[in-house]
Amino acid sequence: MSPTDSDSDHNKELLCFVLRLGDSTLIASQRLAEWAGIAPTLEEDIAFANVALDLLGQARHLLSYASQLEGKGQSEDDLAFLRDVNQFYNYTIVEIPNGDFAQTCAKMYLFTTFLMLLWDHIARGADQELKAIAQKSINETKYHIEHFGGWLIRLGNGTTYSADRLKEAFEYTWPYVSEFFSPDPCISRLAPTIEIDLAVVQNLWLEEISPTFLAAKLPTIEISRFISNGKIGLHSEHLGHILAEMQFLQRAYPGGRW
Amino acid sequence: MSPTDSDSDHNKELLCFVLRLGDSTLIASQRLAEWAGIAPTLEEDIAFANVALDLLGQARHLLSYASQLEGKGQSEDDLAFLRDVNQFYNYTIVEIPNGDFAQTCAKMYLFTTFLMLLWDHIARGADQELKAIAQKSINETKYHIEHFGGWLIRLGNGTTYSADRLKEAFEYTWPYVSEFFSPDPCISRLAPTIEIDLAVVQNLWLEEISPTFLAAKLPTIEISRFISNGKIGLHSEHLGHILAEMQFLQRAYPGGRW
Repeated sequence: MSPTDSDSDHNKELLCFVLRLGDSTLIASQRLAEWAGIAPTLEEDIAFANVALDLLGQARHLLSYASQLEGKGQSEDDLAFLRDVNQFYNYTIVEIPNGDFAQTCAKMYLFTTFLMLLWDHIARGADQELKAIAQKSINETKYHIEHFGGWLIRLGNGTTYSADRLKEAFEYTWPYVSEFFSPDPCISRLAPTIEIDLAVVQNLWLEEISPTFLAAKLPTIEISRFISNGKIGLHSEHLGHILAEMQFLQRAYPGGRW
Repeated sequence: MSPTDSDSDHNKELLCFVLRLGDSTLIASQRLAEWAGIAPTLEEDIAFANVALDLLGQARHLLSYASQLEGKGQSEDDLAFLRDVNQFYNYTIVEIPNGDFAQTCAKMYLFTTFLMLLWDHIARGADQELKAIAQKSINETKYHIEHFGGWLIRLGNGTTYSADRLKEAFEYTWPYVSEFFSPDPCISRLAPTIEIDLAVVQNLWLEEISPTFLAAKLPTIEISRFISNGKIGLHSEHLGHILAEMQFLQRAYPGGRW
C-alpha cells in the first residue's frame, strides 16, 4: 500500500467518525428542539432550547469539517439537508422519539456523558481541527450533563410517581446505549491520530454515570445484548420522519438561503 | 370581457374547485393511512385502509383533471408532490391530527357527509368530466358515511366512557365545519356549470347529520363563529408536516418512479 493509499484510507475513517459525531449532535439537536414551546416550565423550555443550540453549533463545526475531508464540494448544509436516511451515521439513541420529560432527560444524559468521553479522547488526539472543536465543546457538554443529570436526581427523589416514570424512562432508553460500545471499524482505525478503546470507554462511562444513578435511586442495569446500528447507517423507522421535516425547505426550494 | 376571457375565468374557478376537492380527498387519505397497523382492531385497520384507498382514487381522478384544466404540463403527481403548503386548497378539517379513534370517526363523518352533498350537486351539473368522477365516488362515499356514522352511534351508546370520549371528539372537530359553508368566491362563480348554494347545502347537511347525532346521543351544536381557511390556502400548522412526509421521496429523488 502506497503512502497515498494509506492517507486516503485514514481520511475515510476520519470522515466516517466526524460524520458520526456531526450527525449525532445534529439529530439530538433537532429532537430536543421539538420541546420548544411545550417543555414543562418556561425555564426548562429555554434550557432545552439552549442545549439544542449548543448541539447545533457542534454539528455545524463537525459537518463543515466533514465537508472539507470529503472534498467533493458538498457544503455543511448539503450534508445536513441533502443526504438520505442510510447516509446518516448518528447513534440510534438520538433519533428515538422524545417521549415524556423523563425519557428525554434520560436519553440526553446517557448520550452527553458518552459524548464527553469522546471529546476527552479527541482533545488528547493529534487532529488539530477536531481538537479545537472538542475543546470548545467540552464546557458545553459539561453543562448539559449537569443539567440532565440534575433532573434525573430530582425526579428519582421526587414522588413515587416521578421515580416510577424515571424508571420507565430508563427502560425505554437503556437498550440503545450498547451501540456506543459495539465493535466499530471506523473508530478502531483512527489510531494513532485519535486513540479510542471502546472497552475502556465503556468502563469509564459506567463509572461516570454510577454516582448519578445512585443519587437518582436507579438500579444498575446490564448493557443490553440488543445492539442498534444507526452509527453504520441502519436506522430505526424514526429517522426518516425527522429528515422529512428537517430537510423539507431545502428539498422544496433547492439552494434557498435565508 | 371577451368570450375567451370569460372562458378562462371560468376555467380558473373550476380549477380552484377541482383542486379543493382533490386536495381534501388526498390529505384526508394521507391522514387516514396513518392508522395503518395501529387501528383498534384488525377489521378496522383494513376498513380505514380501504377508505383511505377510495379517497386516494378520488384524489387521483380529481388532480389528473386539475392538471388538464391547468394546462401547464404539471402532472397529477407534480400537483400532489411538488406544491407547497399555501398552494394546497383542502378544507382544514382533513389536515388536523387524527387524535383518538373517536376523533377520527367524527372528523371523517363530518367531512364525508359534506363531500356527499358536493358529489350530488356535481352529478347534476354540466361538467362531464367532474360528473363522471362524482358518479363513481357517490357509492364509495355512501359506504364511508355509513361506516363512520355507525361508529358514532356505537360509541355514543357504549359505555359512559365511550360516550364522553365521543363528545370530546366533537368538541375537537366541530369548529372546523364552519369552513364548509363560509363565503366562497370559487364555488359561487361555478354557476351555471355547477350550481351550489352553500346556504342550502348547510341546511341539507344539518338535516343529514341530525338522525345520526340523535342516535349517537350527541347534543346539537351551533355552527362555530371561528372559521378555518384551508380552502383558500391558509392552513393550520399541521399541513406542512403532512406534506414533509408525503412529499419526501419525490423531493429527494425528483422524477423517481416505482
